[in-house]
Parts: sequence; C-alpha cells; structure tokens
Amino acid sequence: MAFRFSLILHFLLLTFIVFIQAQNVDERDPTIKTMEEHSGYPLHEILSISSFSVDSLNLQKQIDELSSFSDSPAPSVTRILYSENDVLARRFIKNLMAHAGLSVREDAVGNIFGRWKGSEPDLSVVSTGSHIDAIPYSGKYDGNLGRRITNQSANDALTGYGFKPKRSLEVIMFTSEEPTRYGISCLGSRLLAGSVSLAGALKQTVDNHNISFLDAAKSAGYAKNEDFSNVFLDDRIYSAFVELHIEQGPILENEGCMLFYSFTLPFFTLHIYKCQFTLSLEGVSIGIVTAIAAPASIKVEFGGSGGHAGAVLMPQRNDAGLAAAELALAVEKHVLESRSIDTVGTVGILELHPGAINSIPSKSHVEIDTRDIDEKRRNNVIEKIHESAVEISKRRGVEVLEFKIVNQDPPACSDDSIIKAMESATQVLNLSYKKMISRAYHDSLFMARKAPMGMIFIPCYKAPEDIANGVKVLALTLANLSNVNVSSQAAFSS
Amino acid sequence: MAFRFSLILHFLLLTFIVFIQAQNVDERDPTIKTMEEHSGYPLHEILSISSFSVDSLNLQKQIDELSSFSDSPAPSVTRILYSENDVLARRFIKNLMAHAGLSVREDAVGNIFGRWKGSEPDLSVVSTGSHIDAIPYSGKYDGNLGRRITNQSANDALTGYGFKPKRSLEVIMFTSEEPTRYGISCLGSRLLAGSVSLAGALKQTVDNHNISFLDAAKSAGYAKNEDFSNVFLDDRIYSAFVELHIEQGPILENEGCMLFYSFTLPFFTLHIYKCQFTLSLEGVSIGIVTAIAAPASIKVEFGGSGGHAGAVLMPQRNDAGLAAAELALAVEKHVLESRSIDTVGTVGILELHPGAINSIPSKSHVEIDTRDIDEKRRNNVIEKIHESAVEISKRRGVEVLEFKIVNQDPPACSDDSIIKAMESATQVLNLSYKKMISRAYHDSLFMARKAPMGMIFIPCYKAPEDIANGVKVLALTLANLSNVNVSSQAAFSS
Repeated sequence: MAFRFSLILHFLLLTFIVFIQAQNVDERDPTIKTMEEHSGYPLHEILSISSFSVDSLNLQKQIDELSSFSDSPAPSVTRILYSENDVLARRFIKNLMAHAGLSVREDAVGNIFGRWKGSEPDLSVVSTGSHIDAIPYSGKYDGNLGRRITNQSANDALTGYGFKPKRSLEVIMFTSEEPTRYGISCLGSRLLAGSVSLAGALKQTVDNHNISFLDAAKSAGYAKNEDFSNVFLDDRIYSAFVELHIEQGPILENEGCMLFYSFTLPFFTLHIYKCQFTLSLEGVSIGIVTAIAAPASIKVEFGGSGGHAGAVLMPQRNDAGLAAAELALAVEKHVLESRSIDTVGTVGILELHPGAINSIPSKSHVEIDTRDIDEKRRNNVIEKIHESAVEISKRRGVEVLEFKIVNQDPPACSDDSIIKAMESATQVLNLSYKKMISRAYHDSLFMARKAPMGMIFIPCYKAPEDIANGVKVLALTLANLSNVNVSSQAAFSS
Repeated sequence: MAFRFSLILHFLLLTFIVFIQAQNVDERDPTIKTMEEHSGYPLHEILSISSFSVDSLNLQKQIDELSSFSDSPAPSVTRILYSENDVLARRFIKNLMAHAGLSVREDAVGNIFGRWKGSEPDLSVVSTGSHIDAIPYSGKYDGNLGRRITNQSANDALTGYGFKPKRSLEVIMFTSEEPTRYGISCLGSRLLAGSVSLAGALKQTVDNHNISFLDAAKSAGYAKNEDFSNVFLDDRIYSAFVELHIEQGPILENEGCMLFYSFTLPFFTLHIYKCQFTLSLEGVSIGIVTAIAAPASIKVEFGGSGGHAGAVLMPQRNDAGLAAAELALAVEKHVLESRSIDTVGTVGILELHPGAINSIPSKSHVEIDTRDIDEKRRNNVIEKIHESAVEISKRRGVEVLEFKIVNQDPPACSDDSIIKAMESATQVLNLSYKKMISRAYHDSLFMARKAPMGMIFIPCYKAPEDIANGVKVLALTLANLSNVNVSSQAAFSS
C-alpha cells in the first residue's frame, strides 16, 4: 500500500515498457579482474552489459501525458479507480503497450497484462507490475519523479537493441492498489491471488457515494458477466514476479554506503562512476527485499459517558478519550515487548467525539496498523492489544463498542532464486545494495501467492540516477529470469 | 460557558421579564408551626408567599417566537453573534422588555439592559441576566425546554400582581456567552467586568471568514465609535447579580433528596406537595452555588517526523500522536495528584495529522481544560502539565510546537448575603437544595468582579416543575435583595 505522504512511483509500467538501452562496454584493461573473478559469483547467467544508460529526456512526454489524466490540477495527480480519468489513463497505457508490440489483455476488474512473447512461449512467464491509480493530490510527486525517469519508446527498447527473452515477459497494471474508493487495498492483486471472499464481497461493495463496485466497474468497461472468480490466476502461469518500488522509509538514505569494486572497475563509464561517487556520500542505491511484512489493521471504538468538562468530577468519569490514549500507548508497549526490530505498530487515527475542549469524550475511535515479517509474532501483538482494550475498558468503565480486525494478511518471503538474480544484477551494475524487509505492503505481497516473488527498492528522495539504477536492476533481473544466456552480446541483434 | 451537548437554558431573560405569579396561601392551620418557627431562621425579609405557580402554557408563544430566529431548521436553533437572526432575536427581546415596562439600553457590544425602576432608584441595582446566542444545532433542547417553562407576559408579571421593588431590578442580556464566532466566551460580561486587554484585542479580532469583530458589530448596529472601554461597568452600579442556570452535571439528579418540612406543612397546595413527592424519588431541586471554578484552557501542539507506518522502525520514530496520548494521561494524573475533588482536567480535543491508518502522526494537537475553585491549585496543575509536555517531547524526540494558555480566569465566590437570600428563598418554597460548586463557568464569573454574585442551579434533565422551581427561587431572591419587606402581602397591590 503506497504511503499517502511519501513519494509514490507509478513509473514501473512505463519504464518496463520502454525498457533499457544497452551501451557498448569500454575496452577492458586485461590486467584487471572481472567482477566474476573477484567475487567468485556465477555471473554467466546475467547480462554482461556492464553499463546501461537511462535517458530521462525522451520519455518525459509520455510521463507528462499520463499525469494529465487527473481530477486535480497539475502538478498534483488524483486518479480514482474507474473514474473518467482512470479510464483515459488505462487507454493510454494500453496504447503504449500495443505500440511496444506487447499483446494486451484485461480481466474482469481491469488488471491489464502486456506480454512480450518469448522465444519459448510455452514456458511459464516472468512478470513485473505496478498500478496507476493515485490517491488524491499525490501526483505532484509522481509527476516530478516521472519527469526524471527513463522515457524511451517501447518500440525502441524492444526492437532497437534486439534483446530476445526466452520466457515471455509480462507487465501487469494492477487495479486499485490504493484503497481510496472502495477501502480495499491491492484489490486487483488480491483477486489475482485467488481471494474467494473478495470476489464475493465485491458484488455488495459500494463507495462513499453509494455507487456499487459492479456499476463502477461496468461503467469503465469491466465486470461484464459479474463473475470475479475468473480473475484468479492459475498457479502455473508465472515463474517469477519482480516489482520495483521506492523504499517508503529512510534506511537506504541513511545507511552508510557499501560500494563494490568502485575503484577496481575503472572501465565503467564516467556516467556510472559519477553515480557511484554520489552514492558513496549519500547512502545505498538499491534495496533487495527479502520479505514483505505481514500487515494487519484494527479498528477500535470506546464508548463512555461524556459530560461537561467542568461539571463532571473525576471519579464520575468514563472518559473514552483517555481509554483511546491508553490503548495507543499499549500498542507501542506490546510492539516493543516483542523485542524484534521487525515488529512495528502505529496508531495513525485517533478521533474523539464530540471533540470540544469542554466536553469529556463520550466516544473515541482508534485505528491501529501493525506489521511483522513473522505472522505469529504479529498475531500475538494483536492478541495483546485486544487484551489491553478489554482491560482498559473495564478499569475505566467504558465500553468496547468495536474491536474489528479489518485485515490480517500473512507475510511473504522473496524467493531465493529471485533474490540471487536481483543481487547479481546489482553487482553487475556495480551498485551498492542492502538486503532488507519491505515493511509497506504492495501487490507483490499477493503475487507471492502465485509466483516466486522479489522486490527492488530505491531510496525515497534521491537523484534521477537512483531511479535509473532501479530500472537497470529490474531490467537485468527480468532478463536473467527470462533464462536467456546473456553472458555475451549474442542475444542482441545489433 | 454552556456545554454544547447538554441542555442550555436561555429562558432566564423571558422568565425574568414575565416573572412570577403569586398565588394566595391556603388557610393556615394555627396548630402547625411556621417554617420560621421550626427553623429559627430569620424569614422576615423573605416573601412570605408560600406558593407560586409558574404557568408554562401562556408563555409558549413567546418561546416559540424566539426559537424561530435560527439559522438551522426547527426544532434545532443556531443563533450566531451579530447574524441576521441574532439581530432579529435581539429586537424581539428588546420589544418584550419595552412591553414589560422596562427601560432598555444597549452598550457598544450589544449587552442589553432592561431596568425595572425601583421606588428608590438612586440605590444600587439588583441584577440578573443570561444570553440568547446559541451554538449550532443547540436549540433543539432550548426549544423543548422553552416550551415547558413559564411564559407569561412581562406586563402581567410586573403590574398584574403589584410587586414593587425598592432597589431597581435589572435584567441583562449578555453578548456572546458562547465562543462560537470569535472564540471568546462570555465576551459581553468580560467587557462589563473591565477587561482592558479584551477591549483592545477586539479591534483586531476576526472570525473564520475573516470578518472583523468591528465590522460584524457595526452591521448589527453596535460599536459605533469603536471604543469598547465605555462598556466597562462602574463598581457602584449593582448591589447584587444572581443567575439561574441548569447544573450541567449530574449531582442534583443523583443526590438523595433533602426534603424540608414536607409533612409538617400540609397547608401547601397539592401542586407543591406533588412536586416534593417527585423530588424525594429523584434528587434535589435546587443547587445553591457557593463558588464558580476557575477555568483555564491550554492548546498544545507536538511535531514529530511522521513516516510510513510500516517502513519506519520503532527506534527511528518521533511519534507526535503518542506524545499527545501521554500528555492526555498526564493531565489526568496531575489532576488526581491534587487530591482535591474540586480539581478537574479534560482533554476534549486530540487531533492527529495526517490522520491516516498507515501514517505515523507527524503532528498532534491537544486542547486541555482544567478547573478548580482554588486558583493556586489549578495553576499548579497547569505548571505540571507544562513540565510533562516538555519531558515527553524530550524523551520522544518530538518538538513542542505550541504550549499556549488560552485563558486562565480566576475563580469567583458567591457572596454570603446572596447565598443566604437564595437559601432562604428555597426554604420558603419548601424545596430541597444543596450547596455546590459551579464547575462550568458563566457570565456570573465575570459579573462577580463588579457585584456580589450568586447562582441558582436546577437539575439538567428534570420535569417542568424543576424549571418552575428555579424561576420561583430566583424571583424570591431578587425580590428579597431588592430590599423590600415582603413578609406580608403589603407589597402586592392585589
């Protein structure tokens, strides 16, 4: 789930479609060992292209065009599921896919698939994906980031440099990663992963304006037979799913840089060298996600007696606001008691009713988010939070009007083979990296139920080079996973 | 300050204007001792009229008419300071005053004074008062209450029963008891009490729509010379100020009843007897206010780092929301540590920014209300709250963006002579009563700076008889304080 107030990248679709530009390697100094020789790491399955450049300028037009499909004025972007602008943006993406020579299909909720047919199309497919729905006023950042990122036509990328995948490659535009309209995050990927309960629930789901999901989907050209179970993916379709995303956290920026071979590989281009220099000052370039934390969200409501802040004496009070305050602190306490750095818990919403300075709160509403890479440990925290809510309510004489676990998704681990492919790609590109946990959740959490999964992180607030680096690592990883022997230029026609 | 979600009485003005209807006493059984004989209490200065009836029906029309001046649909009432409906309601009140034979004047902020000239007009005046501004949608209750209360024309009350005060009696309609429009409660009475700072500040005060207080006051026909210092009252004008109000708390309802002479005075009317019987089951009829608690309000803002609820690990957090939660609990702790039942403290407003389930709060806003009848003790609580805010901010690495004491009014004590008059009136009427603290604050808090003050409470959620009882006690108290010897029917012409 994208963080509302952080940077959000929607560029994956475009960057995948436009893909990579391979550059020729500089003449090599034979006295210097190769990376493979240094590391002893088997790089023969990884593209030996030691340098990619990602040309931001050529793609700017497309990014600008995508950001123009918005319900809020530029530079912000607001693109709500199945709105007119969402439909226009989908058409734009489908056109890009088609122009790039991808075969395009859509499912009943509007997940869009663009497939680059491999030389062995019967093999299971290597996939990547992202979303284009944008929470209100988020696009300001998307747009700014978008302008900086690679933007080369798909046609150029796919045919101009002659890379030919063995396994087919597929890019997926997931429907409604954001919960803005129907309160369900990762709606498209949850369905792809086979959520029977969601497929059923969607038939009764309405938005804040009482417009049903079915009507909205139909207005956008989907849900024709009202059966969402045909969205479910077959387990054998994908051999891999890899997602590129910003970290949404400070770790990559704040960590000391781990540079690899920065001085032992002088044959790298000046461009790459400069990039390394920047990184050595500012942090780590790439995060290789080993697991996605298991998110759970809880809604709690306490009901008390209320009353006038002056007139009701302290012993007569049943203050629902103080119960909420205690619960917020209890969440923190139980999380810290887990003694694991990977356990987090947050009270992001705490509302008091009636919300007047001279009114004792008669009702309070708390929303809790807790995550862990260990599902059992996280569920233990949830149980303790529940016990605290009950204990606080008894002690304060307030009522627990609601204790609802809104969702309680299991964690996902990246597949070892994909971690290895991402790591190798990073090393080939001579980029600093760090293995890390994704503590935000993404469509990948659900795609992991259908395919070996991996995620690549780039820092939140970095230079255009960082974005380019992420695209390069993704490209190399996908190329490697497509199982083409690319240790030589043989796979490239030019 | 009236409690938004409790019952609010605006009926004082009307009930004063229409005043009381004296009824003849039943023939007395000479074998039964009088209350004076029983108690040994000097009742000779108190009206010996042992029974009043307050006729609700005749006044209903006027109450309905007042409630029709509203910005929200009936049965709710919304009457914002200097709005068109406020101006119309003011005109209605002035007409009532004029028809009742009162001489009417207004000051520069629209406090309205209706004086019933006494037989010795040079003596200082006995006064009472209330307000007619109504917070949004409050009027539903006002209206309902209004219909039940006395509603007899002022002319009838003042001349029909021939009561003639010695000291002049004056009713004051205070401007803006509610802080709705300009955020200043008891605006009119604060100015009457001589607040130089307020008189100055009003010249720069604007509402949420950026309409200045000066412009708004002028549009309503006030503030002609823009000098608010001429509102200040001279210390010698009033010999007493008495206000009737609902308790805004549960004490009168919940207390066991203390009935006086309920069986030793069988000559009371059946009506009164019934009333006593009801009271013996349900609580105490009248609260005699001995002091008004000293209110203070504080605004606190914490600023933290924010971030994604999943991505930012617990040790890296500076959670402004948890700082607010801790401060709310610290308020309760410091209040309880005062070990006085009269100290109260409330966090009625606690807001988190950005207020999303997956966002660590980057900002929090807390509004604290604390009161006591002991100013020093309350100020000590404020100091401890401040120390806690600083300590919490340091420990959690958040910033105290604001710690603002919005107001810090001193408490007020009722005057002994007025307590005595109220008590005697209650005893004469054979009503149960309890001496108590007003923990909500009222215009009386500020009028106490200019005159000996007293307040009469009635229960919040009681029968029409309770309201009638309050009116009777007020009437007898005012009559007594007007210093007329009313131990006989002599003062009444009929």
